[in-house]
Amino acid sequence: MINELVRKIKETNAPIVVGLDPMLSFIPEHITKKAFAEYGANLEGVSKAIIEYNKGIVDAVYDLIPAVKPQIAMYEQFGIPGLVAYQETVNYCKSKGLVVIGDIKRGDIGSTSAAYAVGHLGKVTIEGKEFRGFEEDFATVNPYLGSDGVKPFIDVCKEEKKGIFVLVKTSNPSSGEFQDQLINGKPLYEMVGEKVAAWGEELMGDSYSYVGAVVGATYPEMGKVLRKVMPKAYILVPGYGAQGGKGADLVHFFNEDGLGAIVNSSRGIIAAYKQEQYSKFGGENYAEASRQAVLDMKADIAGALENR
Amino acid sequence: MINELVRKIKETNAPIVVGLDPMLSFIPEHITKKAFAEYGANLEGVSKAIIEYNKGIVDAVYDLIPAVKPQIAMYEQFGIPGLVAYQETVNYCKSKGLVVIGDIKRGDIGSTSAAYAVGHLGKVTIEGKEFRGFEEDFATVNPYLGSDGVKPFIDVCKEEKKGIFVLVKTSNPSSGEFQDQLINGKPLYEMVGEKVAAWGEELMGDSYSYVGAVVGATYPEMGKVLRKVMPKAYILVPGYGAQGGKGADLVHFFNEDGLGAIVNSSRGIIAAYKQEQYSKFGGENYAEASRQAVLDMKADIAGALENR
Repeated sequence: MINELVRKIKETNAPIVVGLDPMLSFIPEHITKKAFAEYGANLEGVSKAIIEYNKGIVDAVYDLIPAVKPQIAMYEQFGIPGLVAYQETVNYCKSKGLVVIGDIKRGDIGSTSAAYAVGHLGKVTIEGKEFRGFEEDFATVNPYLGSDGVKPFIDVCKEEKKGIFVLVKTSNPSSGEFQDQLINGKPLYEMVGEKVAAWGEELMGDSYSYVGAVVGATYPEMGKVLRKVMPKAYILVPGYGAQGGKGADLVHFFNEDGLGAIVNSSRGIIAAYKQEQYSKFGGENYAEASRQAVLDMKADIAGALENR
Repeated sequence: MINELVRKIKETNAPIVVGLDPMLSFIPEHITKKAFAEYGANLEGVSKAIIEYNKGIVDAVYDLIPAVKPQIAMYEQFGIPGLVAYQETVNYCKSKGLVVIGDIKRGDIGSTSAAYAVGHLGKVTIEGKEFRGFEEDFATVNPYLGSDGVKPFIDVCKEEKKGIFVLVKTSNPSSGEFQDQLINGKPLYEMVGEKVAAWGEELMGDSYSYVGAVVGATYPEMGKVLRKVMPKAYILVPGYGAQGGKGADLVHFFNEDGLGAIVNSSRGIIAAYKQEQYSKFGGENYAEASRQAVLDMKADIAGALENR
């Protein structure tokens, strides 16, 4: 799947992932109105509205991008119906040929991590038949519990040819509280980065590993260091756009081959129609606004990479 | 809810939480057979079997214990039907008067953590009406992202009078890989513990804080230190029994008042009938085996606390 991701990045010439992180306030009124009329103004109705909203965006942008990254928390907040919308979104994106990165940030002790890995990337066997709970291609993983919390994901990835992105340096303002602490003169995130490189050696694709890393666009100098620490890890870069990361900040996350990083934008794409720059589209044409925002993001990143 | 937890611990005289972490292999054949016959040998059938199995255990032990801790991963591995079983388990335990600790180990950047907090401990508002996704009383939280990943949980807890347990030192063998690293001579887990104490000051119950900590029974010496670092934090202690923690190891996690810690056992209780010690009960009477295992665990911990 890492080979497939790289292939699609080259094909679309877009190291971009669209974060499908729906907030109820992002969904245009014509969609919620219709869903609430049909299913009720309740969790069920919101679930249907989210599916409709996501499909609109995916239909408008899938030819421009290699991958999407639904953030499961935004679905989980609506309970079971929300998780049904997550599952349908994952499946719909896959039917459109997109690589799906489940932003689930799971991580636990061994046997429990194995259950998460199986549920999102693998399969369970019931009376000799195989079943799949969720079917993402990649998942994000929290490293706080150490190797035996990460290894079960790697085991499932080996079997399924799927991959993970391990949280190394997150994009949020207080990420440094623990992640930047110095251990023998080296920050914790660098130590985690070294582990990511080691874990990744076990599971290499053609040029990059199935074990990638998450490093926030908001910390470009750290990205520069981490790029060298984990040369074979694809870096998933959140924090572009709404969180403050700019195209010029991103060049350090890429290797000389122009590969090695994929930049996420969520709100900036999916709620583009709410920004002044794209307001002319209006709520009815929210998906076209998203398409324009993807085109602009592609140009911003391509420009930055050319000028480095 | 922390006051309620303390009250129930005193009432039952049992600083014990039963981990409802079902594996398919734990469920006695008479339950799976019936569920598969009725719903099919599929995710749906497993979901129904889990609910039946859990209810049997809860009915047999609820009068002996203050709380349960379902591990969501064990349900999530079975996709949406599995999560329905999680939700029904949470609700059933609450109907029996048990405090429910959702072992979800979520944690993300601010707005995303807020979505998890709302989904598990709080509510969403749809067209002016309130809805709840999942309804645990407590949730476990991963601290790797720092304060702004934890604060949204605390905000929801304030509103709902609910609580969290933050991962400080986990019970697994490789937990030290990052958690034990020294920062200015002090291990990371201690630094996280200090943060837990600080976060907890914001949200105090009568004698303990709504912000607790997870510290593994497998590291009693570290538990001793952390007990002092976070005097007002309830410590949720996994790793007893199957993972190797013994009653005598646990005394350090408690305060002088005999409170301050609650010890989890999962497999050791819910799959007791599979152990030699309880094999006389057999699969049909698995719930009675669980009841005996709870009684034995209570005696083990009470004995250790008396002899300290």
